Amino acid sequence: MPMKIAPSEITICGRTYDEYIEMVKAFHGHVAPGMVLGGFLVDLAHQNLPKGEFFDAICETRACLPDAIQLLTPCTVGNGWLRIIDLGRFALSLFEKYTGDGVRVYVDSQKLNDWPELKAFLFKLKPKKEQDSEALIREINLAHTSIFGVQKVMVNLDAIKSSHRHTFTICPLCGEGYPKDDGDICLGCQGEAPYLSCATTGLQKTDTTTPVTKRLWGR
Amino acid sequence: MPMKIAPSEITICGRTYDEYIEMVKAFHGHVAPGMVLGGFLVDLAHQNLPKGEFFDAICETRACLPDAIQLLTPCTVGNGWLRIIDLGRFALSLFEKYTGDGVRVYVDSQKLNDWPELKAFLFKLKPKKEQDSEALIREINLAHTSIFGVQKVMVNLDAIKSSHRHTFTICPLCGEGYPKDDGDICLGCQGEAPYLSCATTGLQKTDTTTPVTKRLWGR
Repeated sequence: MPMKIAPSEITICGRTYDEYIEMVKAFHGHVAPGMVLGGFLVDLAHQNLPKGEFFDAICETRACLPDAIQLLTPCTVGNGWLRIIDLGRFALSLFEKYTGDGVRVYVDSQKLNDWPELKAFLFKLKPKKEQDSEALIREINLAHTSIFGVQKVMVNLDAIKSSHRHTFTICPLCGEGYPKDDGDICLGCQGEAPYLSCATTGLQKTDTTTPVTKRLWGR
Repeated sequence: MPMKIAPSEITICGRTYDEYIEMVKAFHGHVAPGMVLGGFLVDLAHQNLPKGEFFDAICETRACLPDAIQLLTPCTVGNGWLRIIDLGRFALSLFEKYTGDGVRVYVDSQKLNDWPELKAFLFKLKPKKEQDSEALIREINLAHTSIFGVQKVMVNLDAIKSSHRHTFTICPLCGEGYPKDDGDICLGCQGEAPYLSCATTGLQKTDTTTPVTKRLWGR
C-alpha cells in the first residue's frame, strides 16, 4: 500500500484540501466522492502539463469530473475550453490548443486492489445506498494520486473542432434566432426540442432578492 | 424604448450586478456579453419558476449560457442537473424534475430593433473584431430583461433521461474501467477517443503550489 498522506498535507492545484472541499460544496452542491477523486486527477494533470500557454481540456465522462475541471482550471463548458466527450472513462486531458500536445490522466484499474470501497464505487459494485461515503472518501484521500496513470497524448484537433455557426437567422416557426446551417427551420422546430408543450404566457416576474442557494446532499 | 435601468439597480438571482460580474470573471475568465445577457435570462427564469422543490435546467446553446446557469443555480454539468441540448437558441428552461413542469425563457427577436449592437451580436452580423464590447454591454444592461420572452413548458422527461450505465467492467484493450453497455471494448478503443497518439509515460509530477489562474480576455 502506498504511503499514506493526510488530507492536511494534500494540495490541489495550489489550494489546500479544505479550500477545495469548500469550493466543491459551493459549486457542485455536495462533496461527491467523484469530486474528491476528480480534484486529485486534475491536480496530477496540471503537474504534468507540457510546455505551452493556452490549454484546453477534454473530459471523458459526464459524472462529476467536468465540475472538478471547471473549478480548478480556466476551462469551462460555457467558454468552450472544456469539451466533454463521454467515453465513460474517468479520465481527462489537458492539451495545448494550437499543437494538440497534451497530457492524459486516468484511473489505473490495476492499482485499485488495495482500495475495496474505491473499486466498488468506480465499478458500481454496490448500490449507492449501501455505499459507505465516509469510508470511501477516506480511501480516496489515502490513495491520493497513487491509483492514477499519466499518458502523453497528441489530440486530434480536427476531430474536436466545434462546428462554427457563422450565420444566424430567424426561424419562421418559433420566431427565434438560430444558426442558418441547421436548416430552413431551427433544430428545436425540427423536433429536437425536449418539450411536450410550450406556450407563451403572461407570466410576470416577481421581485426576488434572495440568492438561489445550492441544494444539499440527499436530494 | 423600455425604461432604462442603471446596472446599480439590477439584481441577478439576489446578487448585485457587480457581484455577478466578479463571479463571471472568476469562473468564465472574462466578461463576455453572452454572460451578462445570460445572467439576466437566468434571473428572469428564476423569477418565473412554477411551484416545486427540485429544479433541473436545460440549456439550448453551448455558448456562455451554460456558465451563467452553473453560477446562478444549483445545476451544473457535473452534478447532472444541467443538460445542454444544443439547439443553437439562446434560451433555457428550469423545470421540476419529477413532473417536468417548467418555465422557458428566450430572446425575443421581435424586441431587438431598438438595440443594434445587441442584434448584431446575437445574429453574428459583425466579425468579433469589429464588435464594440463596451457599447454592446451598455445596450445589454439598458435592454435588461425587456428583450426576453417567457413560456410555460412541459418537459418530455423520457426524452432527456440520461442513459444509466449500471455495470462497469475493464476494457481488454486499454485496461480502464468503462460501462459494459458500450460493448466488448470501451468507446475510446472503438475509435471515439480524440487522440492521434497516446503513450503511457514515466512523467513525474512536480510540486506546484501556485493556483491555476483564469486566463484573461484576449486569448
